[in-house]
This record gives sequence, C-alpha cells and structure tokens, in this order.
Amino acid sequence: MKMSPLNIIKIGGNILDDEAALHRFLDDFARIPAPKILLHGGGKKATALAAQLGIPTQMVQGRRVTDAATLDIAVMVYAGLINKNLVAQLQARSCRALGLCGADAGCIRAVKRPLKDVDFGFVGDIISEAIDKDFFHNLLSQGITPVIAPLTHDGQGQLLNTNADTMASAVAVALAPLYEVRLMYCFEKRGVLRDVNDALSVIPELSEQEYEALKAQGAVSAGMIPKLDNAFAAIRQGVSGVAIGDARYLPAIAAGDTGGATWCV
Amino acid sequence: MKMSPLNIIKIGGNILDDEAALHRFLDDFARIPAPKILLHGGGKKATALAAQLGIPTQMVQGRRVTDAATLDIAVMVYAGLINKNLVAQLQARSCRALGLCGADAGCIRAVKRPLKDVDFGFVGDIISEAIDKDFFHNLLSQGITPVIAPLTHDGQGQLLNTNADTMASAVAVALAPLYEVRLMYCFEKRGVLRDVNDALSVIPELSEQEYEALKAQGAVSAGMIPKLDNAFAAIRQGVSGVAIGDARYLPAIAAGDTGGATWCV
Repeated sequence: MKMSPLNIIKIGGNILDDEAALHRFLDDFARIPAPKILLHGGGKKATALAAQLGIPTQMVQGRRVTDAATLDIAVMVYAGLINKNLVAQLQARSCRALGLCGADAGCIRAVKRPLKDVDFGFVGDIISEAIDKDFFHNLLSQGITPVIAPLTHDGQGQLLNTNADTMASAVAVALAPLYEVRLMYCFEKRGVLRDVNDALSVIPELSEQEYEALKAQGAVSAGMIPKLDNAFAAIRQGVSGVAIGDARYLPAIAAGDTGGATWCV
Repeated sequence: MKMSPLNIIKIGGNILDDEAALHRFLDDFARIPAPKILLHGGGKKATALAAQLGIPTQMVQGRRVTDAATLDIAVMVYAGLINKNLVAQLQARSCRALGLCGADAGCIRAVKRPLKDVDFGFVGDIISEAIDKDFFHNLLSQGITPVIAPLTHDGQGQLLNTNADTMASAVAVALAPLYEVRLMYCFEKRGVLRDVNDALSVIPELSEQEYEALKAQGAVSAGMIPKLDNAFAAIRQGVSGVAIGDARYLPAIAAGDTGGATWCV
C-alpha cells in the first residue's frame, strides 16, 4: 500500500526573530499541500523576557538550564506568544492550524532528564513509544495542521522544556508507520557544505557513511552535528527523507528538489 | 432522540490564584464524566506580569484596555502559562485535556470591538455562528476534554482578548444542538442571594422573570449581572441549564443537585 506523504517542518529562532522572513515562510508553508506539521523553536523572545524580568540565563556545557522561573518563561513564550501567533497567522492564510505542546491530549510524554554530573532542571527526554500517533493521524485526517511548541509533560503534572529538533525527529519517526514522512529542518544556511569556506559547496545528498567520514575529518560544524545525528536516526527508523536547508527554499525543498538543502538519505 | 449530556465549566481567577483550591477543583473536575469542557479566565498573574514589565494597566468603564503589549501578556499568561499547566495537571488525573484558544483550528472567531466612545484595543466580540461545533464534537467524541483560554482571532492573523464568561456561554449555545448542555460558572460565592446580607439565602432555582424583578429592586450585585445576563441568554438559545455557584460544590452542581449553586431555569 502506498502511503500518503506527510511533510514535517521545523523552524528555528532565526526565522521567528525576523518578521519579514517569518511572513515569507508562513506564506510558503501555507501553500504546501496538507497533511503537514510545523514544529517551532524559541528564538530570542524568551531570553529577552528573562532579562526583562531579571531572571539570569544559566548555561552549562552550552545548554540552557531550565529552573522553575525559566520554565514558566518557556511556557509563556513558546506555547503562548509564539505558538498562538503562528496559529493565527496561518488561519489568515487558510491553513487550519492547531497549536499544541506535548502535554495537550497527552500526545508527547517525556521523563525529566536524570541528574548526572549536571542538573539541567525541567528538561524532558521524550519517551518515543509514548507519542500518540493516532491523535496526530486523526487531526491530519480532518485537514488540521498541528503546530507544535517545544514543551512536553511527564504525565504527573509537570511541564518540561524539550529540544525542538529532537521533538521534530521523534514525531517524524512516530508517524513513519502511517505516512511517507519527509522531515525538513529549516535554518539559515543552505545545507551541509563539502567545504565550510565555500557557501556554494552544498552537498545535495548525504549518506550516513559520507556523514561519518566528514565528521571524522572535522568538516561538520558543531551546531550541525545534533541535527544530522537526529536526521540519520530518523531515517534508520523509517522516515523517508530528511532535508536540512534554508527556509527561503522551502517550496523547492517540499517539492523534493535539491539545491536549497542537503537531503540525508 | 435523547442527547448525551455535556458539562461546560468556567473557572475564574479566584480559583487559579489559590493553589490548594485549584488542586481541589482539578480533582473534582477530572472526576466528572466526559464529555466536558473547561474554560478559564486569567487571574492575577497577568496583572502581576504587566507590573513586573512596567506595562500600565488601563481601565475604562471598569474594563481593561488591551493594547499590543497587554495582549502579548494575555496570550503568554492565559494561552501559555495557565492553559498548559491546567492541561498537564489534568493529564496527571487521567483527564485527556487539550488546551486551545479560539485561534486553534479557527474554532472561535471574533471581530475586534468597533471603536465607539471608548477604544478597548485588541478585544474580540465572538461571532457566534462562526463557532466550529463539529470541531468540538469531534474532540469530545474521541474522549478529549477541551481546555479553553479566553482568546479568539479575527481570521486575519490578529489574536483578540475575549471575556471568558461570554466565551463559555457562546460555546454552550453553539453545542446545544448536539448535546444536552449544562453550563456552570464556578466562582467564590454559593450563588444568587435573595438577601445580599444573608450568605445562606441562596436561590436554588431562578427564573428569568424573578431575575428581572430582583434586578429592578437593585438586589443583584453589579458583578453578577453580566453572568446572569449571559446565563439567561444561553437558556433562551437552547442550553438546558446554567448554574452559578461555588467551585467547592462542583461535584454536587455537576450532579444537578441544588444547594451549592443557583440554577437559572
């Protein structure tokens, strides 16, 4: 049986922080045929609000520590301000968006990251097998487009801050048995470069073997490694393709064209 | 055809601001048999956050003016902090809650209140006929409990602050053709008093005629008038019953008992 395609698109803070880029992205996203899912990150608004409220941002090993006050800010900004404005903007573009986080309908459950040498606070690691794929399938079947904020819950009343890239890949994997899933990470670059000093040296198709070779050579930037690790993990678990590319090329990426992205295959 | 009952419950700020009362309410709410819907107001958190951020609260004719900065706070606190924490707490009580506002799936559309003598800013008046009753029916049929924050959208990308009492009654009226709807306004008093100086003189059943008589005598407090006007409007439009009472009596009110509430009939 041939399954229908499902596009899952993740946008990061750089688009959310740039109003013109965001409107252009939303125009393009609204035009992609449904079924589709949007996941979004945070952007600078959470950091700015924390600063205004005098809540210090604690970073450990390059990652933000989520104490109770920081979690409240994440919930307000991600699940409130950003999520609901994205939803309202998509309605205006005739895209029937529904904003949610992992607590809603209990769709994405996580465990609070266990305390080892570092306490990251209220950060959640997704329980992949607990993602409610039937809930998402039901929404998608009604022509509804889920717009997902990067928060989960532990099933015991606690919200948890969760990495949006990881959440995108976990949702893609969960829906792979039901759809031919294509996952796209939209960011500010055109893809994985063969030569980091040459912006035009985008690799159109990257196999896991090539990726491991590039990584061993130190030719993959630190910021790309978690994205690519997530990408290949998703492919090994049944996702049809994962693209990493520039949000401005979304229509081409969604059409499966190469050029504006690296496709992990 | 006998329709299945649907309980629609509205809680106000006084419960949201009192942690012990809120937990008790959520225990009681979770135990009410589905289908059910929860609507919530704002509480003091929005005012406190506005003060912390140095955003002045403007009141005109006893109502809050929603400028752009105040709207952002409402979206963060109502649709983010309050809504998602209520949802996570309900999941912990085995109630499959889904948080949303009127922008989500475009379910409750409004028009920005027209400028007359007062500009209330980004405040929405609900377009009753635009409430998507099939969307709510579909969620309820899946055993999902909508938890609704008091925000709507205008269909053109603008979120709008909307009175939670009015929203509860509009949703109740919209679903009256599909369910035997009972609407409950939970607040801090036990109902409408026959004698404002006697807390035990709760009127168990109040007809619209009696209400008009009490109002003419000046025997109804100013704060109760909009609630009661909404209540009788809902009944005229097919809602089976509207109770106004103390949240602590929710189990009795939900069972249709009198004592902890006034039933408008």
